Parts: sequence; structure tokens; C-alpha cells
Amino acid sequence: MDESKLRIIKVKESILEDNDADADKLRDELKAEKTFYINVMSSPGSGKTSSILQLIARLRDEFRIGVLEADIDGDCDTRTMLDAGVASVQIHTGGMCHLDADMSRQSLREIGSADLDLVILENVGNLVCPAEFDTGAVKDLVILSVPEGDDKPLKYPLMFEKADAVLVNKIDALEVFDFDMDRFTEYVRMRNEMADIFPVSAETGEGFDAAAEWVRAAAREWLCK
Amino acid sequence: MDESKLRIIKVKESILEDNDADADKLRDELKAEKTFYINVMSSPGSGKTSSILQLIARLRDEFRIGVLEADIDGDCDTRTMLDAGVASVQIHTGGMCHLDADMSRQSLREIGSADLDLVILENVGNLVCPAEFDTGAVKDLVILSVPEGDDKPLKYPLMFEKADAVLVNKIDALEVFDFDMDRFTEYVRMRNEMADIFPVSAETGEGFDAAAEWVRAAAREWLCK
Repeated sequence: MDESKLRIIKVKESILEDNDADADKLRDELKAEKTFYINVMSSPGSGKTSSILQLIARLRDEFRIGVLEADIDGDCDTRTMLDAGVASVQIHTGGMCHLDADMSRQSLREIGSADLDLVILENVGNLVCPAEFDTGAVKDLVILSVPEGDDKPLKYPLMFEKADAVLVNKIDALEVFDFDMDRFTEYVRMRNEMADIFPVSAETGEGFDAAAEWVRAAAREWLCK
Repeated sequence: MDESKLRIIKVKESILEDNDADADKLRDELKAEKTFYINVMSSPGSGKTSSILQLIARLRDEFRIGVLEADIDGDCDTRTMLDAGVASVQIHTGGMCHLDADMSRQSLREIGSADLDLVILENVGNLVCPAEFDTGAVKDLVILSVPEGDDKPLKYPLMFEKADAVLVNKIDALEVFDFDMDRFTEYVRMRNEMADIFPVSAETGEGFDAAAEWVRAAAREWLCK
């Protein structure tokens, strides 16, 4: 990897009191500059990075794509993205467990969102706090992996309530774990009538054609393509 | 399950400014009443509940044990504990992503810690925020599961810095996932020179004799047994 490409920025917590209003303002700005911004949330280790790579492989011919890698510390995911030839910036949150709209804005400016069609935010791995803060993203994608168990919508309701789509990752490990897809869907529906649910494997690529099609349709609608 | 045994309490965020001082005070109180209190933290779905059951099976002949199940919502883990004949209270955090010392104290009072030798707190599933708040526990136990990946100490440094011991759960799935135990140990050591690391499987019970021995020794020392 070309080390000169590795950019790490520290974002500061917003001083704005009304994050929701600021998130709406950020969406207006993104609409004007024609950038589709999607927020990917999950627990640590659910496979956000590898899922994003699967989506990008299916979308990069059509869209100019960049990835914001938010972490408390470390730079491994940004290195993975750069190795795959994907424009990426590492965002350090200074210990914060989430990103708000203004932290998003600082990061989007750094990656140069005006020259991109699609920016993917890989949020901090956390199934609780990121759901409480509107990042200004147009869509929220939640990933849950099979080994985490099918009961998670019961325990982390807000995350599933906020999701526009849910990827159930690591379905290649379904035989090893006690995970019931019907039960999971039922629990999601208790929180969320609308979210599309896509069983996928970032390891084998299974299911990602449908998931990428969902992102493509949402991006096209936003970009009026 | 006897539904009359299901107790759900809502704890309130502390109004105390100095949580660290309050946590020290709580430890003094627990020392006086002869209760060993251990805080179990992990991502959602790492296997906290089943690991706690494995530990209890090996410790219940020696100690009077109770479990505090902290969740944003739901009561499934408390039901699991009660089904296993373990004294347990469900703690609802009102959306909060962590417990502080005073929330611990409210919960300990509810379960009647003075009549117990060992109280286990199953914290909210979250690898970020719970590490920032001293719960007043005597020891902090962190669980990471194999499917989450061996790079997590790089991304969630504080959690591993705070750990007195780390369980690496789901080692029965080591063949399915790319998890290198030596690399993981090396990453933990970057944050923490001291923490004992126990590879375990809550599914098969493998490794839990050693992990339970660690808890037993720490509890005996605290209880001056």
C-alpha cells in the first residue's frame, strides 16, 4: 500500500445543540452536491468492512465511491479499503462511541464528497449509541451476523427501528450456530415494518447482488439518475 | 418458569458527578457486606449469558450467586437464568448504553447482595461505552468471540485496557473463521500486560474449568476465604 494515501483525521464532537436539524441540513447539502451518503452500523466484528467491499465490487462501475472508516483507534479498515483501490479516509472519534451530523460533515469534506456519487460511512462498531445520533445519511444500513444470535432486535430495539435495510451476514456459518431466520425476521418486524432484510455472506458473496441492488436503487433515486 | 420470580427494575442515571469516587465507595460497601461483584462486558452476541451459566455451574456449590441482567429492553436473559435456577434481576437502563456505580448499587440492593457471596453483572452488550464507567465491580471480565475477529483490541482499546481477564469464546468455531489466537494475544498485550486470557467454548464447556478457577481465586481473595 502507498503509505502517502493513508489519511487519518480526528473529528471533534459537535457543539450544536440540535443534531437532528443539523442532520437535515447536511442532507440538503448532499442533495445539492449530488452525493448519496449511507451509514453502515453493526456490532464489532459483524463484517462491516468485508460487506462494504462486496457492495462496492457491484457498484463501482456505476458510481464514484468513497468510504469513511470511523474507529476509536486503529487504521486497519482504511488500509483494507486502500488495498482494494477504494478512496478512504480514517476517522478517529477521540474515544466517542458514535458520529453525529457535524462529525460526518467534517469527514465528508476531508474525503471530498462533492466529487463522489456515493459515500459509505462505516460507523463505530456499536449496536447501541450510533442509533441515537442522526449522521445526516440518506439511508441507514444495519448488519447483524449469524453468530450474534437472532434475539438481538429484542435487546437493541432502536438500532433495528432506525434501519432502512438489514443485512444478516455470515450465513455460511448458519449450520454452526442456532440462528432462526424466521424468528429474527419476526423480531425485526416488532420494531420495524418496512426494513428490507438480506441474508448474505461477505465470505462467499452470496446474497450481495440483491443487497447491492437495494443500494443502487436508493442511490439512483437520490441522485435523480 | 414461575412468572412471579421475574423482576424487572428500571435504574436511573446517577446524579453524582464523581462516578469514580462513588465506585470506590461501592467497593468498600461490598467488602463490608462480603460480596464479590464482577462485571462482564462484551459486544452483543459474544455469549455473555451462556458463559456466565458455564461459570456458575462450576461455582454454585461454593458461593451463593446472583446475576444482574442489564439490557436496554427485553427480559430473555433473566428468564434463561431463572430457568437455570439462578437468582436474577432484569435491569432496564432506559436506553442508556452502560451502567455506572450508582446504577449498580440500585441493582445490587434489588437482588439483595448482602445475602449473596458472588454477584455477576451482565452489562449492556457494547464494546465501547461500558469500559468508560467504573461500575464498582471488583473485577472486570471481557468476552470476545471468535467470529468477531482477532483485531478488536486495536479498535476498542479501552475495553481491553480495563479487562482483568479476557475470555475468547466460541473456539468451537475456530475452523470456520480466520482468527489467530497468537495475534489476538499480541494485540491484547499492546493494551494490557496483565490480563489473563482464557480460550473457551460456552457451547461445549471447553476451557471453563480454568476460567472458573480464576473467578474462584479472585472471589476467595476478596471474601478472605
